[in-house]
Amino acid sequence: MGEKGEKSRERMIRAMAEALEIRGYSGTGLNDIVEASGAPKGSIYFHFPGGKEELAAEALNTSGEEMGELFQKTLRSSKSAANGIENILSALETKMIESEFRKGCPISTTANETSSENGVVGLTCRNVFKNWNSKLELFLRSFGYGKARATELSVALLSLMEGAILLSRTNKDIRPLRTAAKTARQLLAIEDKR
Amino acid sequence: MGEKGEKSRERMIRAMAEALEIRGYSGTGLNDIVEASGAPKGSIYFHFPGGKEELAAEALNTSGEEMGELFQKTLRSSKSAANGIENILSALETKMIESEFRKGCPISTTANETSSENGVVGLTCRNVFKNWNSKLELFLRSFGYGKARATELSVALLSLMEGAILLSRTNKDIRPLRTAAKTARQLLAIEDKR
Repeated sequence: MGEKGEKSRERMIRAMAEALEIRGYSGTGLNDIVEASGAPKGSIYFHFPGGKEELAAEALNTSGEEMGELFQKTLRSSKSAANGIENILSALETKMIESEFRKGCPISTTANETSSENGVVGLTCRNVFKNWNSKLELFLRSFGYGKARATELSVALLSLMEGAILLSRTNKDIRPLRTAAKTARQLLAIEDKR
Repeated sequence: MGEKGEKSRERMIRAMAEALEIRGYSGTGLNDIVEASGAPKGSIYFHFPGGKEELAAEALNTSGEEMGELFQKTLRSSKSAANGIENILSALETKMIESEFRKGCPISTTANETSSENGVVGLTCRNVFKNWNSKLELFLRSFGYGKARATELSVALLSLMEGAILLSRTNKDIRPLRTAAKTARQLLAIEDKR
């Protein structure tokens, strides 16, 4: 593929990722993507023979990896486990305010919409969550938490963050994110590192 | 309105509530509701002059109230705050397994899809969450938690539950719900009742 084709493909993925984060899978039509990306009509099926599903899966993987890298970068520079989670929640707060509560988690809306199906889109959402979970788990282990406790805490912290994003977006109010940060600190202070 | 009209209206609300829970707002067309409810075509606008938005708002309010009543009934019969949250999570687990992970929270998908708009549907989602939150807060206060701590804990617990529902549905696995129950118990055991 030429450079121009590569850029056009990249723009479509970017436009789809943004649309999925803001309004979800069903609310996004391929025409919206053609318009938002400025891609020539008809080029979507050239780049994504599987159509909307394939483009969405690519977009979710891309957003998932970017968010995963942000997680990792934030966590790496953190002084303690609690500090790491607070830094992630603080980054989410900035993202939410800057987008006027239109953005939060790039995966959750689509995950909810497609969880009753068995297609590639839902499967991609599941894999992204698993990947984030593993990153959190490794991070906790690096601060001395044992396998069982790290597994448990990573699921609890991811749940807490996802739920807080949902409430903050719906209420257009950052307080649930702030409460999640405080709650995470309390959970991580519990002396049960097994 | 005659009894027949009332029943027909009720069936449409029911069908919409179910569709919103399973696949969300954008993925549900009025034709699906006509079909699922067995209502005569054209009767939707007779009952809901505001169309899809009005029907969805009614459906979300109905689901929200039902879930709120389930919350309250479950909480009233609980021996402790932790026991109450565990009972709610256990009811959610049953619902999720019985629906093969198609159902969980009746509000969250639509809340995510509409949080970037300012219409009646998003506003309804916000009100339902606020109502659930108040119920949880009152419950915690009845077990001796002070105002500030009860406010904080109710947001944390609702976030934790919503996030766990999302992860459980996406992974088709009840473990995130179980982890949320254990985590709620830990949070409620923290001696900070102010």
